[in-house]
Amino acid sequence: MVDQAEVLSIDPRTGKVAEVVATESSPEEVAALCAAAAQAAPELERLGRAARVRMLRAMAAALEADRETIVGLADRETALGAQRLNGELTRTRYQFELFADAVEEGSYLEAVIDHPMDTPMGPRPDLRRMLMPLGPVAVFGAGNFPLAFSVPGGDTVAALAAGCPVVVKAHPGHPATSQRCFEVMAAAALEAGAPRGVLGLVHGQEAGALLVTDPRIKAVGFTGSLRGGRALFDLAAGRPDPIPFYGELGSVNPLVVTPRAADQRAGEIAEGIVGSFTMGQGQFCTKPGLVFLPEGESGEAVATAMAEAVSGRAAGTLLSQGIREGYLSRSAALSEATRVLAEGAAPGEDGWQAPVLLLATEARRLDAEVAEECFGPLTLVVTYQDEEELMRALSALPGSLTGTVLSARETEDATAQRAAARLRDFCGRVVFNGFPTGVAVSAAMTHGGPWPATTDPLHTSVGLTSIRRFLRPVTWQNAPQEVLPEELRDGFTGVPRRVDGRSGS
Amino acid sequence: MVDQAEVLSIDPRTGKVAEVVATESSPEEVAALCAAAAQAAPELERLGRAARVRMLRAMAAALEADRETIVGLADRETALGAQRLNGELTRTRYQFELFADAVEEGSYLEAVIDHPMDTPMGPRPDLRRMLMPLGPVAVFGAGNFPLAFSVPGGDTVAALAAGCPVVVKAHPGHPATSQRCFEVMAAAALEAGAPRGVLGLVHGQEAGALLVTDPRIKAVGFTGSLRGGRALFDLAAGRPDPIPFYGELGSVNPLVVTPRAADQRAGEIAEGIVGSFTMGQGQFCTKPGLVFLPEGESGEAVATAMAEAVSGRAAGTLLSQGIREGYLSRSAALSEATRVLAEGAAPGEDGWQAPVLLLATEARRLDAEVAEECFGPLTLVVTYQDEEELMRALSALPGSLTGTVLSARETEDATAQRAAARLRDFCGRVVFNGFPTGVAVSAAMTHGGPWPATTDPLHTSVGLTSIRRFLRPVTWQNAPQEVLPEELRDGFTGVPRRVDGRSGS
Repeated sequence: MVDQAEVLSIDPRTGKVAEVVATESSPEEVAALCAAAAQAAPELERLGRAARVRMLRAMAAALEADRETIVGLADRETALGAQRLNGELTRTRYQFELFADAVEEGSYLEAVIDHPMDTPMGPRPDLRRMLMPLGPVAVFGAGNFPLAFSVPGGDTVAALAAGCPVVVKAHPGHPATSQRCFEVMAAAALEAGAPRGVLGLVHGQEAGALLVTDPRIKAVGFTGSLRGGRALFDLAAGRPDPIPFYGELGSVNPLVVTPRAADQRAGEIAEGIVGSFTMGQGQFCTKPGLVFLPEGESGEAVATAMAEAVSGRAAGTLLSQGIREGYLSRSAALSEATRVLAEGAAPGEDGWQAPVLLLATEARRLDAEVAEECFGPLTLVVTYQDEEELMRALSALPGSLTGTVLSARETEDATAQRAAARLRDFCGRVVFNGFPTGVAVSAAMTHGGPWPATTDPLHTSVGLTSIRRFLRPVTWQNAPQEVLPEELRDGFTGVPRRVDGRSGS
Repeated sequence: MVDQAEVLSIDPRTGKVAEVVATESSPEEVAALCAAAAQAAPELERLGRAARVRMLRAMAAALEADRETIVGLADRETALGAQRLNGELTRTRYQFELFADAVEEGSYLEAVIDHPMDTPMGPRPDLRRMLMPLGPVAVFGAGNFPLAFSVPGGDTVAALAAGCPVVVKAHPGHPATSQRCFEVMAAAALEAGAPRGVLGLVHGQEAGALLVTDPRIKAVGFTGSLRGGRALFDLAAGRPDPIPFYGELGSVNPLVVTPRAADQRAGEIAEGIVGSFTMGQGQFCTKPGLVFLPEGESGEAVATAMAEAVSGRAAGTLLSQGIREGYLSRSAALSEATRVLAEGAAPGEDGWQAPVLLLATEARRLDAEVAEECFGPLTLVVTYQDEEELMRALSALPGSLTGTVLSARETEDATAQRAAARLRDFCGRVVFNGFPTGVAVSAAMTHGGPWPATTDPLHTSVGLTSIRRFLRPVTWQNAPQEVLPEELRDGFTGVPRRVDGRSGS
């Protein structure tokens, strides 16, 4: 028997092992969890929406009750700080509650009833359509959000709310947090009456790959790097029966400062951008990675104020050794290819510290390689000569989660309008006079976008409509009442329905 | 310069070339059409929904005005008969009109407005979400529906309605019909004010592959064989920037006759099934390919009546030489692996005729290979000993577009309920006391299902919700009114919207 590798919880502030959390999951363990999830799927569905709502609320309450321990572990494993992580736990709990409300309300089912009628194509039968759970879902936790995009994160909540059991692949950066959240949630689910197997957890890279190719897994949610995401996407697409793979991969999040905005409020803008790109040590997928500033005096004022804010700024601790190494090598290459505007203080010796960095180049020199995402506390100022040059540079950018415009207040700003229209073509969210970091959980949110922002531009991984990823439509034709799900039966008024083309029930 | 291959229109009734339609599209021609589509995309969007509605209605009217020529060509190229093809043209026109109505009505935009508010996560900004066109779409015409699933078919209409220019790859089985429909539609679009490039047509297999990998194409709609679909799916998934590929591939469409139904009306059931599986010479993707009959007297009565209806039945003409060869070799292999219950009359010498065939086996002997789709006028009767055996056999079947239950009328039928629940797990549409051939175009329709019925179980390729495949969500955050699409502006009442969680506008 081969020894299974140990799963270590490492403290980024010291670089030392804090505890051994588990051993990596064996192929047999992965298969058993997938089998349990497959068995739980019809049981979970049979319990109905009300029971699922209870399960989601119980999970939210249990996470809240364990707040101190979870936040403590997460801080020890990510160095993101208690304040941020307490906020993340609040967000996580809120996500569960919002999805519970949405399941209760029921419009996500997209229930449609078309009664029999005569059409130019001949008589039409009774047709009733509703979205049904897709089956067991694999979720890959993200390293940069140990709660909100990890075991208890948005993908997990959306899949469970849809009625799909979930097997999570723990991120190696925070295995103890993952394990703790899993235990808390699984116990709460059982207590709330959910079947065993509704939630599973695996550790280890091989276990992750096995999850994606397991025939019982029907969809995958992933948040992480372009390289890792692409490899798993290829596995999912290469299955004998390909399955949907929802990966949120990487994003440069261009931010445009118009000449008029720079004229109006250079200092305020500089402060906001530096706050946004250094938030969480620049380890947000929505970090503004390209900052377009107009050439000339007011743009220079923004750049100068940014440089002042960055110079001598204390080094922060990154999530892991791998992230730090990646940041140092990529920022060194970028520094070669551009100009260094300002550098933060040199990092200390302990753990995985890295310096803040502010680089600059010209829009006409921005090539695909330079424009690629750099994960960590660095942004690239890109100066543009005129609107045409700005538009050309934006047109060459790849798909992005967000695009931001800082425009003049209380006066017309034609550059802002043109930039926003262009950003809309390749971004999932267009932000005005604000910053892209910070993604509200709401019905109108889109956290998605064309490749490489995500692997599937039709969806969002944040907000209520993210549930759509784990549902498929089924139509019943001339079915007797007792065969239909209750939401499609005559006289049911518990969910919004579209009947013969009219909203109502 | 290499000569480009000729695109031949062949008459299936004679096997002879009727005309040379075109030459296969060169890589340069494919690239030029994709470039034109990419250029047309923002222009089409700028025209707005009202102009798109006019374009769709103009296309419908133009197809109707050219009915005689189109149906004549389609009959010459497919041998499906004028009656069926006139019905198909009516359906096609109706599809355009339905989608035009849906674009006008606007609920497909899924417009959502969340006004600023305080949440447990802190203040939430103004967020407005709407679905936007994905960009140029490639559509692969199907061989078995030269109109309704081809150049003027459902994929084309849905993509155009969404606001996406379309480049169609003509099916080699009906190039003249494709060319004619294209010319009629393109002229109507131009006259209705649509930009050049909104519709393109290519011929040839290589041109099809080039379409799927062209960087300007943002999604693909496909209806066809599992093998061809898988190859193109792999191309789409293997791109540097993978794109959504919506393939409707193949389906066995199990049909269950319950013991009580067989007791009640053996003759009527037999007649219905034979009509359904021989419709269009069995060349429907919804053809019932597996007919589950109870062992014993009443099941045998159904089988006997089916055999009588099939015996000596005239041979029909299949769509193409390739289809005929595939049918003959697969039906020969199936005849070896099962029992021949009845055979139709031997085919004549002319063209691509083939005999109707009725085979039989036992549920316990049904393996994956035997259960695979056979395209053409053949079905396999599968007898089951009891409910448990039926359920086991259904549980082993792959994803399917439809599943049908013929149950007892006006009395309880527990077998029907169990079978329907099981079918729901792997079928897109569950039909009761009717036949799966015939797919109504309606809001509640689902023409889809888990692999291998389709490459993406989240969607339907027939019905109003098929438009969702060609749209992606975009969210505007704190955007000024003039930047927003009109459908998201304050006070706009032209489309249904969900505002702060409530339906309304």
